[in-house]
Amino acid sequence: RINFRRLKNTIDKSAEIGEIPGNGLKRLALSDEDKEMRDLFKSWMEETGLSVRIDDFGNMYGRREGKRDLAPVLIGSHLDTQPRGGRFDGILGVLTALEVVRTLNDYHIETARPIEIINFTNEEGARFEPPMMASGGLAGIFEKEFVYSRVDRTGKSFEDELKRIGYDGLQENRIKDFFAFLELHIEQGPVLESENISIGGVEGIQGMNWREITVTGEADHAGPTPMHLRKDALAAASKMMSVIEETAIKYGVTATVGRLSVTPDVANCVPGEVVFSLDVRHMDNDLRMKTLEKMIDEMEKVALERNVSFEVENLWDSETTLFNEKLRNLIMETAEKYGYTSKSIPSGAGHDAKYMNELGPTAMIFLPSVNGKSHDVSELTLDEDIEKGANVLFGVIKRLAND
Amino acid sequence: RINFRRLKNTIDKSAEIGEIPGNGLKRLALSDEDKEMRDLFKSWMEETGLSVRIDDFGNMYGRREGKRDLAPVLIGSHLDTQPRGGRFDGILGVLTALEVVRTLNDYHIETARPIEIINFTNEEGARFEPPMMASGGLAGIFEKEFVYSRVDRTGKSFEDELKRIGYDGLQENRIKDFFAFLELHIEQGPVLESENISIGGVEGIQGMNWREITVTGEADHAGPTPMHLRKDALAAASKMMSVIEETAIKYGVTATVGRLSVTPDVANCVPGEVVFSLDVRHMDNDLRMKTLEKMIDEMEKVALERNVSFEVENLWDSETTLFNEKLRNLIMETAEKYGYTSKSIPSGAGHDAKYMNELGPTAMIFLPSVNGKSHDVSELTLDEDIEKGANVLFGVIKRLAND
Ligand SMILES: NC(=O)NCCC(=O)O
Ligand SMILES: NC(=O)NCCC(=O)O
Repeated sequence: RINFRRLKNTIDKSAEIGEIPGNGLKRLALSDEDKEMRDLFKSWMEETGLSVRIDDFGNMYGRREGKRDLAPVLIGSHLDTQPRGGRFDGILGVLTALEVVRTLNDYHIETARPIEIINFTNEEGARFEPPMMASGGLAGIFEKEFVYSRVDRTGKSFEDELKRIGYDGLQENRIKDFFAFLELHIEQGPVLESENISIGGVEGIQGMNWREITVTGEADHAGPTPMHLRKDALAAASKMMSVIEETAIKYGVTATVGRLSVTPDVANCVPGEVVFSLDVRHMDNDLRMKTLEKMIDEMEKVALERNVSFEVENLWDSETTLFNEKLRNLIMETAEKYGYTSKSIPSGAGHDAKYMNELGPTAMIFLPSVNGKSHDVSELTLDEDIEKGANVLFGVIKRLAND
Repeated sequence: RINFRRLKNTIDKSAEIGEIPGNGLKRLALSDEDKEMRDLFKSWMEETGLSVRIDDFGNMYGRREGKRDLAPVLIGSHLDTQPRGGRFDGILGVLTALEVVRTLNDYHIETARPIEIINFTNEEGARFEPPMMASGGLAGIFEKEFVYSRVDRTGKSFEDELKRIGYDGLQENRIKDFFAFLELHIEQGPVLESENISIGGVEGIQGMNWREITVTGEADHAGPTPMHLRKDALAAASKMMSVIEETAIKYGVTATVGRLSVTPDVANCVPGEVVFSLDVRHMDNDLRMKTLEKMIDEMEKVALERNVSFEVENLWDSETTLFNEKLRNLIMETAEKYGYTSKSIPSGAGHDAKYMNELGPTAMIFLPSVNGKSHDVSELTLDEDIEKGANVLFGVIKRLAND
């Protein structure tokens, strides 16, 4: 069993870096706070006897040697957060991985296979879009040039920021081969909590599509410009957002307009341009794509009616992922052995495991989220669930590392 | 007659300070660009033999003495612009005032009354809300403490910025008394151009109300959060914006949502909070207020349906203004004398003249706006109209200054 007091203490220390009111965290990828957290995590890995390396995406690895020269078991998640995120999303997966190694050390357990723990760069995609950029880079989904050239809203590039914080490691340090990858994460949805289940064995991750919509009308004076002569980009965008919501509900997909900016963004100016994101998700790839097309058709109709121009940019496409069934069964069996309730569920959120699944056998452990909340400071997972999850992870890793 | 070549040259020089692509200007109140323009305008006034003074709102005055110790004739407008504004809005009123004085000097014309020209601070209200803050200060509509404590979106205060650019003058320099105030301005609407009229005699300014609406829902993850469990502040705000537009059209008022911000403003976050401005205008005070109430009622219904909270803050209220009829007639007569077409029209935009009207006899001259556009870089007023307007202003001032 893991040492919960130590794990809890580690989580609390992490929760001090980038703290914001309401027990939240703002630790955007490659920010000063991310660097501070990385430095601390590096020191923790070194104290735990792990040999640390960094790859050219800034992914951080800590390796514990095995008795034999075999492909390692890989465990981890991410330490970056949303701008108003919680203390658990991603962080639990990294810190429970560290706790697993610490527990093996406590009991002087040697394993046949090496174990590597990992902190992936920029999982959230809040600062540099799209999400899971560094695991996608490892899997060859994103080219290195693409990742390096991503810019945040102030025009700073991934490459410059990675170098600035000193985490631009070597390409040869990338993980190439692993026996299994395990990621523990909070569910971020309401299913486990509402059914009173402690451990989720994750079936897969629903596909998602990101689009950026630009509506261009004409800026004008809010006073003397008659309503019927306006080409108000925000009035048009409002209708489009209603159409997105209606279409999503009608076809049973989820769709979100999460970011939106107005130009010139002044109280006495009719908006000339509006840019907004669209995130569409569903496990059924066909249904999702058809619904997205339908949304775009309907938005185009709004644009035509209102005489504004309408452009759609493809930001990101990601098909539905199915995880390794054997590994999931091992998670469920381990939970059962410990006497914890468990259930197979799909994931509504993307995770680095999605792209690692392209490279080798991958599975995820989900823990309940109080009120299903995440991507907000109100995110919470209870101590008892964290302890159970860490124990299951420990049990699974001990098994796999000796396989 | 005024010297159009000289006036045009002065306008072109002004158009270099804060220039943005598309022949536009970004010269926000109390910015570095505003300071640069003020310094240049000060030097122009001094070269023209005017004695310059600055008041505690940063309003700039240039005085030409009269033969007698009488209340001055005041002429002017503002040199600040919108963030994506044009080269004429406000600027024409200040630079034609300067041209009037230069022309009087050319012909060594002495007037009975002193003439003062003025550049009002922060007319646009784009950086510090509400608009016409410094003329409102002179008229006692806004307290000095209120004006000084206004902050821009980065948290910088009017007072600090006024001091930073060195235009914090003396309270005793405020204009107290004038014989007449004249403001020449572009129409910013489509009426004069569409009817092929050169000179507008402005009847008054429609009343306006500014509100700030805050919609608070709950931030959430865009993936695992089912549509029916969301409290999406932006989806709710979209419906509210549609309701605003529909209600405005139904009751024949104009209404604009010009600025809007989303929190946390990330593609994979359901928006937790949206803040937006509402600008409502109409000449009929009762109709306008009733329509605004109706809009708020309807928005409240949307909030209730969607289980989000809804707050309305009063930013600004301004009743309809009617200008001095005798002065307007003088404008029309002068236009007629020169053989220019003219017409009485109301103003859809606010102007410093609105608040100066509280202090003494006030009138405005409007010039046609190409396509009715303003508050955008596409703003344009033709040379021939500028020349006609400046001539009318000159004729009117010559008359008034000897009255
Ligand atoms: N786990 C998580 O919040 N990932 C962010 C990627 C996404 O699902 O949008
Ligand atoms: N003239 C002008 O654009 N004034 C700004 C104040 C307003 O009407 O909103």
